[in-house]
Amino acid sequence: MPTERKVCVVGSGNWGSAIARIVGFNAKRHPTLHETVTMYVYEEIIDGKKLTEIINETHENVKYLPGYKIPSNVIAVPDLVEAAKDADILIFVVPHQFIQRICSTLLGKIKPTACGLSLIKGFERAEGGGIELISHVIQKLLRIPVSVLMGANIAQEVAAEKFCETTIGCKDKEMAPVFQDLIQTDNFRVVVVDDVDAVEVCGALKNVVAVGAGIVDGLEMGDNTKAAIIRLGLMEMIKFIEVFYPGCKLSTFFESCGVADLITTCYGGRNRRVAEAFVKSSKTIDELEKELLNGQKLQGPITADEINYMLKQRNMEERFPLMTAVHKICKGEMKPIQLVDAMRSHPEHIVKMERLA
Amino acid sequence: MPTERKVCVVGSGNWGSAIARIVGFNAKRHPTLHETVTMYVYEEIIDGKKLTEIINETHENVKYLPGYKIPSNVIAVPDLVEAAKDADILIFVVPHQFIQRICSTLLGKIKPTACGLSLIKGFERAEGGGIELISHVIQKLLRIPVSVLMGANIAQEVAAEKFCETTIGCKDKEMAPVFQDLIQTDNFRVVVVDDVDAVEVCGALKNVVAVGAGIVDGLEMGDNTKAAIIRLGLMEMIKFIEVFYPGCKLSTFFESCGVADLITTCYGGRNRRVAEAFVKSSKTIDELEKELLNGQKLQGPITADEINYMLKQRNMEERFPLMTAVHKICKGEMKPIQLVDAMRSHPEHIVKMERLA
Repeated sequence: MPTERKVCVVGSGNWGSAIARIVGFNAKRHPTLHETVTMYVYEEIIDGKKLTEIINETHENVKYLPGYKIPSNVIAVPDLVEAAKDADILIFVVPHQFIQRICSTLLGKIKPTACGLSLIKGFERAEGGGIELISHVIQKLLRIPVSVLMGANIAQEVAAEKFCETTIGCKDKEMAPVFQDLIQTDNFRVVVVDDVDAVEVCGALKNVVAVGAGIVDGLEMGDNTKAAIIRLGLMEMIKFIEVFYPGCKLSTFFESCGVADLITTCYGGRNRRVAEAFVKSSKTIDELEKELLNGQKLQGPITADEINYMLKQRNMEERFPLMTAVHKICKGEMKPIQLVDAMRSHPEHIVKMERLA
Repeated sequence: MPTERKVCVVGSGNWGSAIARIVGFNAKRHPTLHETVTMYVYEEIIDGKKLTEIINETHENVKYLPGYKIPSNVIAVPDLVEAAKDADILIFVVPHQFIQRICSTLLGKIKPTACGLSLIKGFERAEGGGIELISHVIQKLLRIPVSVLMGANIAQEVAAEKFCETTIGCKDKEMAPVFQDLIQTDNFRVVVVDDVDAVEVCGALKNVVAVGAGIVDGLEMGDNTKAAIIRLGLMEMIKFIEVFYPGCKLSTFFESCGVADLITTCYGGRNRRVAEAFVKSSKTIDELEKELLNGQKLQGPITADEINYMLKQRNMEERFPLMTAVHKICKGEMKPIQLVDAMRSHPEHIVKMERLA
C-alpha cells in the first residue's frame, strides 16, 4: 500500500462539497494522505462559465455550496476517469440513481487496490424486488471493498463547522484509522464501527420512521405519542436489520447513524414535513412532493414500498406494524389515524413480558 | 397471596390523578385486582370544600387534573394510613421530597406482604453526598420490594388518552404480569423489564442531558449539534449506570424510559427551556427558575450537582464531559459555549477506534 494515499471525491453537490472541504483540510495536515485531492464535478455552465473552472479559480462551489471556501488543494475535474484513476480512496457522494452509471464508467479504470467510502443514502431496487445496499452495488460493480459514512449530518451545518458527529462503518482494521484521519476535524467527530451494513441501512430506514413522525405531528397527537412512534420505529429498524442483515451489534444503533440521525430526521427533515402536510391537507404525497420539494422525490415513501416488498415476501408485515402502516398510508390504503391503531398491539409490548414472566 | 389484589395510589397530583384514572379503569375489568382503589389525597380546602369530598362526589381532581373524570371506584382518602393499610400494591406518586415522611408514617401500618411501584422521578441526596434511588429509600424504610415505572409520559397527555408507552422495571416474575394488568390500556402501553435501577436512573439523568440540549438551543448551534449532544448524553447515561449500578442491559436504554423519554425532555420540557433562556439572558439559573417556573425547582441542575459529587469521588469527571460541563455551566464555572469545546475530545470518539484498530 502507498504511504501517501490519494483521495478522489466522486460528486460535488451540497454534501459532496461539504465533505471536500473537510477532506481537503485533512489531506494537507496528515502525512498518510496525498495533499492533492481530486473532486469529480459533473460539468455545468454557470453564467457562461464552466463550473469546474469556477471552483478551481474561486475555490467555491457557487452552485451547490455557495458561501464556503473549498481548500485550494481540492481540484475539480470534469472527467470522471481522469479524477479517479490514481485514487487509493474513492469517496462516493452522488445521488443514488447515478451510481450504476458511474461504476460502469470506472470499471477497469481505477487502481485495483483502491477502496471506497460511500456517503450515499437510500437503496437500489434489487432485480426482482426488494433492496440492495449502495455499498454492495459499488462493491459488486467495481470489485473493491466499500465502507460507509452516515450520521446526523445536515450538509449546510457541516459546512458551517457546527459541531457534530458521524459514524463510519468499516470492516478493514488497517483502513479504519486512515478514514478517521481523512474525515475527522475538531468539529466533525468520527466513530468507526465494524457494522457496515447496519450503518448504511439505518440511513435509509430512518426516512420511513420520519414519515410516521410527520403523520403524528399532522394528527397533533402530542409529545408522548411522537416519542412512542420514534422509539417503535427504532425498534423496527433494529429488528429489520437483525432479520435481513444478521450479525449487527445493538450498540451500533446508539451511534450517530442510529439514534442521532433518526432524531434529527423526525424533528426536522422533509419526510416529516411532507407527511405532516399530507395529514393536514387533502392532497396526495405525489402532489405535495411537487408543491413542497421542487421536483425532488421523497425517500421515505419509496423506501417504505421497498421494505414492504421484502416483509411481504417473508410474511412478516405483522412484526413491523409501523413500517407497514406508513407504507399503506402513503399508498392511500389506510387512513393516517390508523397508524396509531396499528401501534396498540405492537409485538414490542408483548415480547418483553414473555421473556420475563 | 390474595387472588384479588387491593391497590392504593399514594399521591394525587397531576401525574397521580392521571394514573388513578388508569388504575381505576383496570381494577374494574381485571379479576386479579380488587375493584375499589384508594387514593391518598393530601387534604386541601378548595372554595370552602375539602378536596377529598370534591373528588368523591364529582370524581374529578379539580385542583390538579381538572377536566378529566376519575372512575368512581377510586376513593379519595385524606388519611394516609387509612388509605394504605389494606393495600397489596402501593403506587407511590408524590414529589420526592415527601417520600421520607410518607414512609415513616406508613412503617408498620401496611401489609407485610405488600409491594410498591414508584413513579417518583429524581434522587434523594444520600447521607454524606451522592444519590440514593427513591425506590431504594422506600424499600429500605418500609421493607417491601419496590418496582418502578418511567417513560415518555407527560401527565396531561396520558390523561387525554393520547397513545404512549411506559416502562416498568420489576424483578419479580410473579408481579410483572400483575403490574401490566394494572397499568396497561389501549392507549398506555407497558413494557416490563427487569433492569429496575437502570429504569429509575434514566428518569433522573435525562434532565441533565436536557439542560445540555437547552444550552445548544440557546447557542443556536443547529440540528446536528443538538443531535450530537443528545446522543453523547445518552452514552454518558449508559456509562454512568454501568459504573454505579452495574449489571444493566443495553436494551433497556431503547425502552420508553430511555431514548423516548430523553427525546421528549430534550425537545419539550422545562429543563431545556430554562437552559435556553439562561444562555440567551444574563440571568442566573436561580433567577430564571423564579421567573419561569413559578417557584418550582429545576431538577436538571440539582441532579447534575449530585452526579458531579459522585464522579469527583471516583475521579471520573473526564469520562463524563457532558454531565461535568452542564454542572459547571449551571454553577457559573464555565461558559455555555465551552459545552461544545468539552465534547471535542469526548471519550466516545476514541474508545471505538481502539476497539477496532
